[in-house]
Amino acid sequence: MTPMSDTRSAKVRLYVEQPLGEGQTVPLSREQAHYLFSVMRLGVGDPVGVFDGHTGEWLARIADAGKRDGALVCETRTKPLRLPPDLWLLFAPIKKARTDFIVEKAAEMGAARICPVQTDFTNAERIRRDRLQAHAVEAAEQCGGTFVPEVCDLQRLSDVLDAWPEGRRLMFCDEMLAGAGAALGDAARGPWAILIGPEGGFSDAERARLRSLPFAHPVSLGPRVLRADTAAVAALTVWQQALGDWG
Amino acid sequence: MTPMSDTRSAKVRLYVEQPLGEGQTVPLSREQAHYLFSVMRLGVGDPVGVFDGHTGEWLARIADAGKRDGALVCETRTKPLRLPPDLWLLFAPIKKARTDFIVEKAAEMGAARICPVQTDFTNAERIRRDRLQAHAVEAAEQCGGTFVPEVCDLQRLSDVLDAWPEGRRLMFCDEMLAGAGAALGDAARGPWAILIGPEGGFSDAERARLRSLPFAHPVSLGPRVLRADTAAVAALTVWQQALGDWG
Repeated sequence: MTPMSDTRSAKVRLYVEQPLGEGQTVPLSREQAHYLFSVMRLGVGDPVGVFDGHTGEWLARIADAGKRDGALVCETRTKPLRLPPDLWLLFAPIKKARTDFIVEKAAEMGAARICPVQTDFTNAERIRRDRLQAHAVEAAEQCGGTFVPEVCDLQRLSDVLDAWPEGRRLMFCDEMLAGAGAALGDAARGPWAILIGPEGGFSDAERARLRSLPFAHPVSLGPRVLRADTAAVAALTVWQQALGDWG
Repeated sequence: MTPMSDTRSAKVRLYVEQPLGEGQTVPLSREQAHYLFSVMRLGVGDPVGVFDGHTGEWLARIADAGKRDGALVCETRTKPLRLPPDLWLLFAPIKKARTDFIVEKAAEMGAARICPVQTDFTNAERIRRDRLQAHAVEAAEQCGGTFVPEVCDLQRLSDVLDAWPEGRRLMFCDEMLAGAGAALGDAARGPWAILIGPEGGFSDAERARLRSLPFAHPVSLGPRVLRADTAAVAALTVWQQALGDWG
């Protein structure tokens, strides 16, 4: 639930789980009603942009505005669905605020799936998946996207690698390569994942395994050691420029 | 004052303003003493990495450890000075936490100077320059750098453009170009600046002026609208890959 930063007919964009269509009524949750009516001070008849992650963006109008609930009616489709490239972001959760940032950044930068992974040097034993998913929703609302990436449950990196899907390549950001230059120039398009290591880096065993994987491409992110949240945005930029939808 | 994420002889790196040299005694401020002795629990004889921004990194040892002060003695130089490319980051200050992040990210990503600018749509009337400078110091300590970028005072964008130095190019990230593709491929090396717009974008007058400047290169950061802090890291990545020290 975020005010838009550019000017279109609706100033507020809202992600809803219900499938949208012309004339469709969309009931509002208590939180959504509070945001639209109390925070943004909208009322009956005001326009709201809505998207469901599957059918693009729609212009809706407020049909009913209560204290704890309300409803929109969906009018016309204003944007087609735009899917991000088939890119997963795997990262080791770090301190709460920086983990929230990584999820927000991954959604803004166009990752299709966000996968927290536990590495040998990861401190986090669990994550709040629902809270991270809410950050992904808010980032999609903010950045004008029509798609919300799925946040997966925390898995062990070794389990993820054991079950690695055929045909998906892995860009693995190795701080031990510092200064060796990025190397995605002639890599093939198709399904990819990016793996960002934890603070403290990968263990020797993990690094050896990652280097031996036939689908893994080690890439350097320059001569300075980046924090995990910086590395996530930098890696997404490198990938989107070389193989994604920035071209 | 930050514990290091990789393994070298000293686990803690400290930026000091005093020029360093072999055998040099370095008095510690109250804050530095608290960090080394109470937080990191170091004592006399323990190694500390120190850098002054001019002479590289030195191995120092704790010679005196008090409650409110102390001293290091500088032993040998362990790293040469590594200057970042001659790149300025100009950005419009936003909410406090995100402004702090932009400064941290700019230092990590290798900007040489950080310049907060007031645009037509910038809300901030003032900044805490000393606080932002402290964030730049902490980021340099964290990322293994031997240089701390200078944070400038807040200036009006129009004044900065009026006094633009000859020979410096400007990469100007224009969200109105979304999807048009980045375009730094064949730009010339040399002194550069990156300009990140405020939330809400540039005004029409600013955009017209920026587009008319002979030294300005508009660049797109992909089809999604990025928050200013995301845009800063993405733009620094694009520049460092094309023209900076990642090659």
